[in-house]
Amino acid sequence: MIVLGIDPGLKNTGWGVVEQRGSALRCLAYGCIVTDAHTPVADRLAAIHGGIDRVIQRYRPTGCGIENVYFSTNAKTAFATGQARGVALLAVAGMEIGEYGPGEIKLSTVGNGSADKEQVQYMVRAILDLPQIPEPDHAADALAAAITHVNMRVTRAGERVR
Amino acid sequence: MIVLGIDPGLKNTGWGVVEQRGSALRCLAYGCIVTDAHTPVADRLAAIHGGIDRVIQRYRPTGCGIENVYFSTNAKTAFATGQARGVALLAVAGMEIGEYGPGEIKLSTVGNGSADKEQVQYMVRAILDLPQIPEPDHAADALAAAITHVNMRVTRAGERVR
Repeated sequence: MIVLGIDPGLKNTGWGVVEQRGSALRCLAYGCIVTDAHTPVADRLAAIHGGIDRVIQRYRPTGCGIENVYFSTNAKTAFATGQARGVALLAVAGMEIGEYGPGEIKLSTVGNGSADKEQVQYMVRAILDLPQIPEPDHAADALAAAITHVNMRVTRAGERVR
Repeated sequence: MIVLGIDPGLKNTGWGVVEQRGSALRCLAYGCIVTDAHTPVADRLAAIHGGIDRVIQRYRPTGCGIENVYFSTNAKTAFATGQARGVALLAVAGMEIGEYGPGEIKLSTVGNGSADKEQVQYMVRAILDLPQIPEPDHAADALAAAITHVNMRVTRAGERVR
């Protein structure tokens, strides 16, 4: 199964693609869609939607893990991020989608719901056997969301990817 | 010039289409895209995007006025509304887009930035010479955003539609 992870944001939308084969997880690709604050919002959203769509066309994921990001932020930031998340979700409509809060992603990757960002990044690298921690942060966060989605499915089936 | 107005929301996305001919404004159509809270968010967003897209295909607007709605709300609501607004903006990308706060819309339609909702609805009906106040509210709000967009363009050109 191929799973796309997304860490949505108007300025930076991280994405990562992982493939599950049995109990093994492999990273197929990751990256970050960056949009310029001086560009009209509709064009930034089109860039995010188009970028995610190209990743989907290339890697053909059938599942998607996406971070819920309205926690501990103000309404204006939540609104901006919500717009980015909206067009990202639109791109994955029809897939099996899982939405995960930061605590769930930390618990699923590190085994501790209050782990810090560095621990998550470290575990993303270890789980996917990557030569280095994925950069930028947003890409690592997207991979963490993808790993969480795989874990949640596997947990339901009675085993765990680690 | 044909202008689409949008009042975005995850549950209710109001829309309205007005046509400007000289100093006259005419309403071509209005409505509201309603999505069910029990439907997955990605599908709700696809319904909003698809609904706006159908309106665009039918009426071919070249401009769009859209309400900025993160004011006086909490982060969770702003996030949900932001998602709806994101897919609506994606649908109108490429048009001439104007984003207006509630105060700007009230000022432009009623002439008073702190007018109440009923006054805006009353003026929308009067400006567009409609037989009744458009329902639901979201459709009237969308028409108010469209009127504001026309007014803003006309004001820049030195006259005012009323």
